[in-house]
Amino acid sequence: MSLINDLQWRYAAKAMNGKTVPQEKIDYILEAARLAPSSSGLQPYEILVITNKELKEKIKPIAFNQSQIVDASHVLVFAAWDNYTLDRIENVFQATLKERNLPSDTMDAYKERLWGLYEPLGEEWHAQHTAKQAYIAFGMAIAAAAEQKVDATPMEGFDAEALDNLLELNKKGLKSALVLTLGYRDDNNDWLVGMKKVRTPKEKFITELV
Amino acid sequence: MSLINDLQWRYAAKAMNGKTVPQEKIDYILEAARLAPSSSGLQPYEILVITNKELKEKIKPIAFNQSQIVDASHVLVFAAWDNYTLDRIENVFQATLKERNLPSDTMDAYKERLWGLYEPLGEEWHAQHTAKQAYIAFGMAIAAAAEQKVDATPMEGFDAEALDNLLELNKKGLKSALVLTLGYRDDNNDWLVGMKKVRTPKEKFITELV
Repeated sequence: MSLINDLQWRYAAKAMNGKTVPQEKIDYILEAARLAPSSSGLQPYEILVITNKELKEKIKPIAFNQSQIVDASHVLVFAAWDNYTLDRIENVFQATLKERNLPSDTMDAYKERLWGLYEPLGEEWHAQHTAKQAYIAFGMAIAAAAEQKVDATPMEGFDAEALDNLLELNKKGLKSALVLTLGYRDDNNDWLVGMKKVRTPKEKFITELV
Repeated sequence: MSLINDLQWRYAAKAMNGKTVPQEKIDYILEAARLAPSSSGLQPYEILVITNKELKEKIKPIAFNQSQIVDASHVLVFAAWDNYTLDRIENVFQATLKERNLPSDTMDAYKERLWGLYEPLGEEWHAQHTAKQAYIAFGMAIAAAAEQKVDATPMEGFDAEALDNLLELNKKGLKSALVLTLGYRDDNNDWLVGMKKVRTPKEKFITELV
């Protein structure tokens, strides 16, 4: 199978059947997210993986009572850094240099230039930018789930502040950006299951400048 | 090959060798982006595909002189809607309902609810939100390129306003969000080509709440 076939197969399941996704498939999906590229390689986000039943019950009303939250096997919360700091950038760059056996000052000039760009942009811009990086990883997780024939429902429809409070994300310097429920479609109860996939027609979506 | 293998193979090529990527591979990559999910299925973005040499030369300084802009085979510009409007939402929903042979008022209540949420959030929020959706499609395009063994360099480092002006995106109600150069790595001149891929270790990246 190819990625295109996988993307044609997938859809945002509106009802899930409660069956458990095997751990190796979950690990595979998380690994795809971990391998996603990000701006300057900073990966300014983490993933919380929720299987706890009580916790899922508490998240459901925060996510406007979408049933997949409790009927999914695993609920993934993509949480992005609340801001960039020089320390956070330095930590990632030092870890990278160590892995590559390069001198610890190799990225100093780049770091200063990056911070010179980022610092004046302010915390609101930072939070938007870190969240955007998480969207790339989110795309990779959705593609990986489709490859594994695991249904995945992308969700932005939740009260981010309430979810941050419930998961105490502020203590970790994070903000919830996205939720992805992983599980299996409930063929009998999902109004969307048989519907034609509709996308912007190619001729409207693409403009060639040759 | 699997998506994980493809993601391990890929990297952000810092130098490209000028060779042309076959059209069927470009079409495949664009189709993966077109199939990406987006919030409420609105797909609030388009892709401009640039092969024109003079245009690439003009973009290069706008993208801080990154050589891949001219040495890539194709330069993709992901451009997001500058805002949401009730008309834009209505147009997408009507096209969806037509494709699905459903009555034209089927999504009216949903549309009103969505607009009730979006309208008060303002244009700056709209532009951030439409751009975020483009990041998901960007992830799919990167994954598809890797599957096709086409090198792809994700870029946020460009003067978005200058690029908008050059491509006259404001006339189309769009803003440039992301650039992806597609081509082939220049093994002899790319400092990054042999470097170890470094990512946040799994134990830091993932928190399980069981």
